[in-house]
Order: sequence, then structure tokens, then C-alpha cells
Amino acid sequence: MSTGSDMHALVRRLYPICRSITGDGLRRTLEIISEYVPLRLREVPTGTPVLDWTVPKEWNIRDAYIADSEGNRVVDFAASNLHVVGYSVAVSTTMPLSRLREHLHTLPEHPAWIPYRTSYYAPTWGFCLAQDTLDAMAEGDYEVRIDSTLEDGSLTYGEHVVPGEVTDEVLVSCHVCHPSLANDNLAGIAVACSLARELAESNPHYTYRFLFAPGTIGSITWLARNAERIDRVKHGLVLACAGDRGGLTYKRSRRGDAEIDRVLEHVLRESGRRHRIVDFTPYGYDERQFCSPGFNLGVGSLTRTPYAGYPEYHTSADNPDFVSPEAMADTLATCLEAFAVLDRNRRYVNQSPYGEPQLGKRGLYDSLGGRSDAKTAQLAMLWVLNLSDGEHSLLDIAERSGLSFDATADAAAALSRAGLLKD
Amino acid sequence: MSTGSDMHALVRRLYPICRSITGDGLRRTLEIISEYVPLRLREVPTGTPVLDWTVPKEWNIRDAYIADSEGNRVVDFAASNLHVVGYSVAVSTTMPLSRLREHLHTLPEHPAWIPYRTSYYAPTWGFCLAQDTLDAMAEGDYEVRIDSTLEDGSLTYGEHVVPGEVTDEVLVSCHVCHPSLANDNLAGIAVACSLARELAESNPHYTYRFLFAPGTIGSITWLARNAERIDRVKHGLVLACAGDRGGLTYKRSRRGDAEIDRVLEHVLRESGRRHRIVDFTPYGYDERQFCSPGFNLGVGSLTRTPYAGYPEYHTSADNPDFVSPEAMADTLATCLEAFAVLDRNRRYVNQSPYGEPQLGKRGLYDSLGGRSDAKTAQLAMLWVLNLSDGEHSLLDIAERSGLSFDATADAAAALSRAGLLKD
Amino acid sequence: MSTGSDMHALVRRLYPICRSITGDGLRRTLEIISEYVPLRLREVPTGTPVLDWTVPKEWNIRDAYIADSEGNRVVDFAASNLHVVGYSVAVSTTMPLSRLREHLHTLPEHPAWIPYRTSYYAPTWGFCLAQDTLDAMAEGDYEVRIDSTLEDGSLTYGEHVVPGEVTDEVLVSCHVCHPSLANDNLAGIAVACSLARELAESNPHYTYRFLFAPGTIGSITWLARNAERIDRVKHGLVLACAGDRGGLTYKRSRRGDAEIDRVLEHVLRESGRRHRIVDFTPYGYDERQFCSPGFNLGVGSLTRTPYAGYPEYHTSADNPDFVSPEAMADTLATCLEAFAVLDRNRRYVNQSPYGEPQLGKRGLYDSLGGRSDAKTAQLAMLWVLNLSDGEHSLLDIAERSGLSFDATADAAAALSRAGLLKD
Repeated sequence: MSTGSDMHALVRRLYPICRSITGDGLRRTLEIISEYVPLRLREVPTGTPVLDWTVPKEWNIRDAYIADSEGNRVVDFAASNLHVVGYSVAVSTTMPLSRLREHLHTLPEHPAWIPYRTSYYAPTWGFCLAQDTLDAMAEGDYEVRIDSTLEDGSLTYGEHVVPGEVTDEVLVSCHVCHPSLANDNLAGIAVACSLARELAESNPHYTYRFLFAPGTIGSITWLARNAERIDRVKHGLVLACAGDRGGLTYKRSRRGDAEIDRVLEHVLRESGRRHRIVDFTPYGYDERQFCSPGFNLGVGSLTRTPYAGYPEYHTSADNPDFVSPEAMADTLATCLEAFAVLDRNRRYVNQSPYGEPQLGKRGLYDSLGGRSDAKTAQLAMLWVLNLSDGEHSLLDIAERSGLSFDATADAAAALSRAGLLKD
Repeated sequence: MSTGSDMHALVRRLYPICRSITGDGLRRTLEIISEYVPLRLREVPTGTPVLDWTVPKEWNIRDAYIADSEGNRVVDFAASNLHVVGYSVAVSTTMPLSRLREHLHTLPEHPAWIPYRTSYYAPTWGFCLAQDTLDAMAEGDYEVRIDSTLEDGSLTYGEHVVPGEVTDEVLVSCHVCHPSLANDNLAGIAVACSLARELAESNPHYTYRFLFAPGTIGSITWLARNAERIDRVKHGLVLACAGDRGGLTYKRSRRGDAEIDRVLEHVLRESGRRHRIVDFTPYGYDERQFCSPGFNLGVGSLTRTPYAGYPEYHTSADNPDFVSPEAMADTLATCLEAFAVLDRNRRYVNQSPYGEPQLGKRGLYDSLGGRSDAKTAQLAMLWVLNLSDGEHSLLDIAERSGLSFDATADAAAALSRAGLLKD
Repeated sequence: MSTGSDMHALVRRLYPICRSITGDGLRRTLEIISEYVPLRLREVPTGTPVLDWTVPKEWNIRDAYIADSEGNRVVDFAASNLHVVGYSVAVSTTMPLSRLREHLHTLPEHPAWIPYRTSYYAPTWGFCLAQDTLDAMAEGDYEVRIDSTLEDGSLTYGEHVVPGEVTDEVLVSCHVCHPSLANDNLAGIAVACSLARELAESNPHYTYRFLFAPGTIGSITWLARNAERIDRVKHGLVLACAGDRGGLTYKRSRRGDAEIDRVLEHVLRESGRRHRIVDFTPYGYDERQFCSPGFNLGVGSLTRTPYAGYPEYHTSADNPDFVSPEAMADTLATCLEAFAVLDRNRRYVNQSPYGEPQLGKRGLYDSLGGRSDAKTAQLAMLWVLNLSDGEHSLLDIAERSGLSFDATADAAAALSRAGLLKD
């Protein structure tokens, strides 16, 4: 499940399902995810107050179409679930194209693509279609039918926990509410599933919590229901747009210098990967909620091409061919490298801080002096001893010394075993 | 009174008057200013201790000349009040040119210009003249006469207040002690008068206090007599050299990052005007006093070409033709733009800081989701909500977001009306 | 003793002695230094615990050689004391070259040079020789003899103090443990001797303590025995590699912004000398100990080409010809300039901080006003008055104003005499 092709297979499997912020498509998606990583599922009833919001009615849809006077379905939900504006109320009527137009959404600049639109909180209905399709529709009457229900029900989300040595948590979150859109966010879901499975095999220091929830209202619901748990969330990463062929983009947390920010910047820089680091902005994905000023969590966001940064964004062109196994594998590898640093990053305190401790008598230093080619392992120990004053983390020391994080962490481990370092 | 030509007319009207740090020319100048903005005038008696200084004797002058042996006035105060060293004591004698020379000041590098010199605190006398004039003077005896008095009297300054919603003050100060010098500082006086009149029509938040006082001793006198008021001065601007054709120069307060500094830098940068920002230096105009370490007020200085930065500085070439209506209008507009930002700049606190508040239910957000072309007004609200934690001002938010200050302030106003923001 | 040739003569005189971290060569070296600057000598017995270390046994050597089967000494300690690995235990045997090789150290990349090697804390023996010599040695048996003793004794170091007005100290340290190596560190010793003599004639503000001690164990021993004195050490400088022909290198203290760091950077920049400033690293010379996290002293290091930065480092090519009188004189001059700044650098408090004090009535300001060519001395007084708030040092003021430190210090002296400044 951790190869690019495994992840791509999951994207293809989830792609046809009509997801929204509530409803059976969302439930089915979480069921499938559960086959890869067991989920604890939550159902939160319609009407539940969550922070400044209220859990909305549950939306389900069975069929929808626009048919011409001869009964031909010129727009058909069965062909693409993007055709219906998300949360459209039921409609069954006939109307001339002239009046129907105000319910139609197209992308004139990309005439073959169907846009993705929603109206979660204002009761309305609409269809999204290719401009080419609209251009081919003759004036005259059309049968319009949306067989949907908007009723009391519940909002569903799932959590998966990889237990660690400590109860401090790293939150990995991805939105699961978008219908047939591959990069946004089936690729993120697939990377998250693989990441959870890989982490489970690494006996991590932190507890890693994976949240699969609808965008905005899902993360708000989780935050509302986990007030007592928030303090445990020390770091976090929102995963989205994880599969396109562009370079990686790390968007900093609102804090700007949270440990997760430092770690991602370090790993991306050291890896030599093509990437960009951007400052926090209050739009994008669920980092908007985790980084609202009341919470202000150390949660960044990792994407490839970011939110709204590619023409295929929120259109039918964001299909499984738009994402690649190699890109998803690269996103996964980046997350694993970052968490490998995050998981070992500590502030130690040198237990022999007055002068250098004598490393030679502990078998940690070459006995032959005078040479100028000091070994990396010895330099790393000197750096870790010198800067381990409780202020500098291993990542600080790696960046200050120019040594790799691995060399720094290995030195810290050797010094800890010798009793020279405590955390 | 706010057009460039109105201001230029005031410069021309004030130009002939012989001003100094005390005396009737200063009084006459303040009377004329009062025709434009009503002044509360203060007379501070000679001998009054003011901080480390003492109000000096009052100086008045009626006539002065150097006449050759045939009675021709080769240097005549009536032709230019720059001819007499300011605060010259009376003299009436005849002496050979060889002895007179030590009382004469010229500018050899600009042989047609008369320099401006003073000797406020050392009793002496002297004449300033063109090098050309001196070169034309034959050796031999000259009659030398200065009909001046240096007697107990008073120092005069004027204040004009534009009341605001709050008693916190913005201080605008310009020196009024220079004789026939246009850019330094009749242009500053004219811009200050127009600025006061414009601000009065804008119902400002802050109270704006305009100080028209002689340089150094005038601001020192004001500071000495307003010890209890100093804490109210939250921001300030010294206006000088406001009319030459060079670009604008903003000189930061001693603090370097006072709000007035941030505002002027923002406005000058965003306006696209040619300008320079320079750090505080302890010479120049009355910012020297306002920014002395005991007061350390947030007072910057706005000039066009700065203090001593142009050849005409403190010479007869700084005449009304040296300043332009357009330049004064541009200085005025810059002040108005800056005060429009300063006056609205606040730190707000988001009243719904946990997650984003639901803007849609308050009519503040588009109901149709999925689009990537979020409107500026919506982005501005998200930015203001996210950063309004009591730490970030609207100016901070504008600079951080890249949105205009106006868009940011408009968003804050809309959110305040919806009860989502408090200051 | 302060000319380059005097210092070079001292280097030549000390060069032949076989020094180590203990022993008679070290004692003889300190005796010779005492001829230039009187030293208080300390003998610390073998076995004394010093911080995390223990004073080792004392090592002395009388003779050593490798002789071929015909009795020819192919490697002879008498020719160069680098031939024997420092702290080699006694050996007297015959062995074939094939077995001897594991005790031989060469520099294949510089086949004519003898390397310098030590083994202070692991009992072993070895010879260092030119690769050319080794290449010329035939296979077969060799007589190997090292006539050394490693016995209980003591470690020796010396201190010289130049008393100042205050008991706060500046520590100047140089290692004295290297055998025939000129730049590392006989040049440093010679510069330190001259520096001490020059400082003694300048009636310094600080007390300057010069430490001549073996590297690592010597400074650790000094630190261990002076726990109660450490707080007096306000600044310090480790002198090494002071005579090669490269540019100067200043290595910052661990703090990075200690006053000594600021001073050296200022002096090197203002002097126009070719130089580099580098950040602290926990290897090099005794700054490693002074800047260990428990002490974290404001001690930097001044070298010309730094530690291990030149091919001749720790080889027989670091001989007296490798160092130049001019380079040592330049290092000395740099130290004197730096200490001249350090010694006068203070934070003053303006006693008349409200407005500018009237300098004219105190005879500190030109009486003729209006000119734009204010004199440096007057500008310096205005700067010192404006920034002397107890926060800014004279060095801060010099750097902020662009004036020289000397002009700034002269202004402070004049203002202090006038009662306008207190420190």
C-alpha cells in the first residue's frame, strides 16, 4: 500500500463516488478507507452546534439530469457527479433554456471541462456542464430533474490513530468531501492512508492522529468535539493536492516558525526537491480552522501545486490521469522524511557543560591527536554537546552546524547512552 | 486654501517679513497664519527657564546697512533681511574694510547668493552678502550701522487644534523663525495650514495639534510648558522643506518603528511616489527635541529634499521661485493619505476566534462555493479575522496580506458591524 | 619587544624546544616567556581532577630514533622533535619494517614534510616522518628506541596580569603545548607577550589576564581552579596562528553578539584590513572550553589563517620561515586597536535627556548658526546625547552614526566633563 501504484489504485477506486460534506457517498468513502487503515467513525447529528456553526442537514442524491424535448439526457449525473451543484435541493420541472441558464455553471475559458460548484448553506439547485454542451443546447424547453434529499441526518468523519511513546499528538488531516476530483483530494487521502501504515511500522515517538473529514465543517466539528484534546496536538499537517506533477509546496502555519514549519523547510531544502515555501494565508484547506487565532496550532499544509494554482482545479479535468503514482510516492516520501525528523527532534541538556567532557575515556573520540580531518561523528558530538543547553533542538544544531539531522541525532543518541545528555 | 496655488500665495505673502526666534516679524507671521487657521498665541517672557534653556531676549531690527565713503548703501537690510546676521547687536561706527571683513559672511562657491546666518546666544553682529558684492568693495572706510534692539520681551508661538473623537493627539510641527527663506520653512507653514483645514472637515479620530513655533527654542519652550500633555502625543510629524521640486524624504522617529514610521513608509511605498526613507539622525529640525531620549516621541519628519541637502539651503536662492505649487500640493496629499491611514489604524480582537465564524449566515460571504476567484472583500475579512488577535494592527494585516489598507479597514468595519470584531 | 622582528626573534628562540602538555620543555618555554612578561607559574599534580578530566602523567623525552641494521639513524628526534608522537611511551626493541609501519605516520600528499601527532590519553608510541624517508627505507629489521618517561609529576601553566582600573577582566589565552611549530603557536605566544607589554603602558580600564597554558587540558585546569574568578571575565580572546601571511580571521564567541565580537568586527571592518568573520564552531583552540555551554564566556578567537586552514598546519613546514614579522606586527596592532575600543566602550546616561541640552552655554557648540557644515565633534556630541539612554554603548553609537569610535568616545569624554553624561 505504499507504492505509487497502490495509491493510484485507491484514487481510481474512490473516484466514481459522489461525495459531499454529508451523506452516503461520504460514508462509503470512509468505509473503503477503513479497508486500508481502520477508522473510528463518528456520526454527528444535524443541528448539533459546532463552534460558530451548526451541523447541516444530510444531503443524498440518486439521480439528476437535464433532458431535451425528445427525452435525451443532455446533462446526466450518471456520467459525472460534478454535473450537479453540491447540496442542490430536489427539482422536477420543465423550463425554457432562457430561464434554466441562471442555474447553469460553465467554464468558458475551458469549454470542454465541467466545473465543480456547491451551495451548502443556501438552498438552491444548479447544474455544472461543459461550455461546449451548453453551446450545443437549442433554445426551448428542457426537463430538469434532481432526485435529491436534504433531511435531518448526520455528518460523518473518521479517525485513525497510530499510537506513539507519548500522548502528544501529530495531527494529519485531509478533506474527504469532494466528489470526482482526483488531486483534490483523493490523492491526499491515498497518501494519508499509506503514511499511517508506514508510521505504524516505525514505532513512533509521537502519537499520530489521522483525520478524514469533510472540509471546513468537518474540521470545525472535530475541533468542537475535541476541546480537551487540542492541547495534545503539538504539530500537524494538512494534506491536499498530493498527486499532481508539480513541485511540492509547503505552506507555513500561522505561527510561521512552528516546529513543523522548521522541519518541513529543512527536509525540503536538504532533499534537493523542487519546492516552494509560502507563508500562511487564511484560505486554502482546513489549516484555516486549525490556525484560526483561538487555536493557532502548529499545523502547516503540504501540497504539490497549491490550492487553486492549476487550471484543472475544481474541474472535471482533475481526474485520475491528472495525478501520477510517482508524484504521490514523492509526497509520501517527503512526509515520512519530515516525520522522521520531527519524531526525533528534541532539546537535550549537556550533563557535563563545564568545559568539554573527555570523550576519549568514554570511547567516543579518536585517541590519535593532531590530525585535521576530524570525523563527522566526532564533530557532531562536539556540536551537540556545545549547543545542548535546553534551548537548541537537534534541528537547530543540525542547521547551525551544517551537519545532517541524522548525524546530529546519532550523536545525541551516543551521548545519551554515555550519560552525557538528558532530554 | 488647499490648492498648490493657494499655498504658494501664502508663501509669497510671508516671504518679505524679517522673522527670528523672537520679535515682531515672528508675531506678524503668526497673525497672518491666524487668518487661515485660528491660532492660540502664547507669549513666554524673556528669562523663563525652559528645560535646559532660558527664553532669550527679544530681538527687533529696523534698519541696517554698510555704506561707502560716498554714502552709498552697498549692503542694505531693506533689500534683503538675510543681509544681517540674526540677533546682531546694534552697531553704529565707521571702520576700514580690512577690519569689517571679520563681520562679513559670503558663499564663495555661489558668489551671487547671500547666506543666512544667526548668532542667537553669543552677542555679536555681522552682515551676510554676496561674494560678488564683497569683491566689488574697495578698500577704505565704511559706515556700518545696525539699528536693532535686544531687550527683555517674549518668545511667541501659536497652536491650532483640530478636535477628534479621542483626546490622544497627533502633533504637527513646523518652525516659523526663518526670515526670507521659502522652502525653509514658508512652504512647510503653508502645507500645515492647508492640512489643518482639510483635517477639520474629515471628523478625525485623533485630535490633531498644530504647532507654529520658532525652531529649537520654540519646541523646547512648548515641551517645557506641556509636560502633562506629552503623554497624549501618540504620533507626530515635523514638516519642513515642503515645497522644492525634489522627491519626498521621510525621516523616521528615533524609535524607528513607531506607528507613524510604519504609516509613512506604507503610504509612500504604496503611492508609487519617488521617495526615500531615512533613519533618525539627531540633527535637522525639531524632531531633535521631540525625539530627545527623555521624550522619545513617535515623531518623524517629512520633507522633500532634506535639511542641508540642496545648494540653495539657507541662502537667498531659497526664494518663492524655488518652491512650486505642485510640490506643495503633493506634500499635502501625502500627509492627508498618511493621516487617513493613521486615523483608522487599530488593533481589533476577533470575537469568534475558534475556527472561522460562519460569514455566510451573516450575509458576508458568497453562498456559491467551489470557485477559485474569491473576492477581495472576502479575502480581506478572512485576513482581518485571522490576524485580529489584539497583536496585529490593520496596517500589519494590510502589509501581511498584500491587500490595500482601505480594503482591510473596510473589512474590519463590516466585521465590527456584524459583532465579530471589537477594538 | 613590540616590533615584528622582536617577535620573530622570540619565535626562533622557542622553536627548538620540545613542548608537550606537560614536562620540562613546557617549563623551559614558560621560563623564557617570563623574561619578557613576568609569569606566575602553577604546577598542578598528576591525578588532580579538573572538571570532567584528570591531570595526566608528566611526559619527558630525552632521545628517540629509528636506526637501520647498520646503526644509521634514519629517523632521529634530535633532528626534529616532531618525529616522535607526543606522549609516546618508552620503547627499545628491534622489529622488521613490516611491523614498524603501524607505528609510522606520514603525509603522502606532502612527501617531504613530517606530520605532528600526539596520543595523550591512550598509551602507545609512534614516529612521524617524511614519506620520502619512509620510501627510502629498505625492508628488514630496524632498531627502535624512545627514551621517554611518563610518570607522576605535574602540569605547568603561567599567568601574567596587567592591572586595570577595575577588577573586571579581559582574558587573553594562547596554547603553549606544541613542539616545533611556529605559527601554531609560537607566533601567538610572541604576540601575546608584546600585547601584554604594550597594554601595561596604556593604564587600561580593564584588568588584562594573559594565560599561557597547554591546549585543552591547560584551559580546563585553569577553569577548574578559578571557578570563583570566572564571573570577572567579561571578555576574552584566544590567540593562535598569529603569524602566517594570510588575512585575519575573527571567530565569534558562542554567544555570537558578545561585546568582544562586536568590537573585533568593528575594528576589522573600519581598518580596511583583509579579514573574515566566522561564527563559533566547537572545534579549534581553547575557545572550545571557554565557550562550553556551562561557561559560555564572551571569548572569541583571533587568528590569521584559521585552524587546519593551511597545508603547513601541524607539519614540519610550519617553521619560523612560515611566519613573518610583518604579519605578527599586524596581528598585534589589531589586538591593540580592538582593546582600545573595548577599553573605552561604555553605556552612558544623558543627564539632561529632555530636549537637547544647550551646548553653546557650555562652550561645546559653535555660536554661529545657519551653516550646514556641522563639525564632526558637534555631530558626535548630538549622537552621544541622543542615544545615551543606558541602552546604547559608544560602539552602538559609532556604528549607528557612521562616526568613528574615537570621535564618539571623545564626544562622550567632553560631555562627561560638562556633567551631561554619567556612566
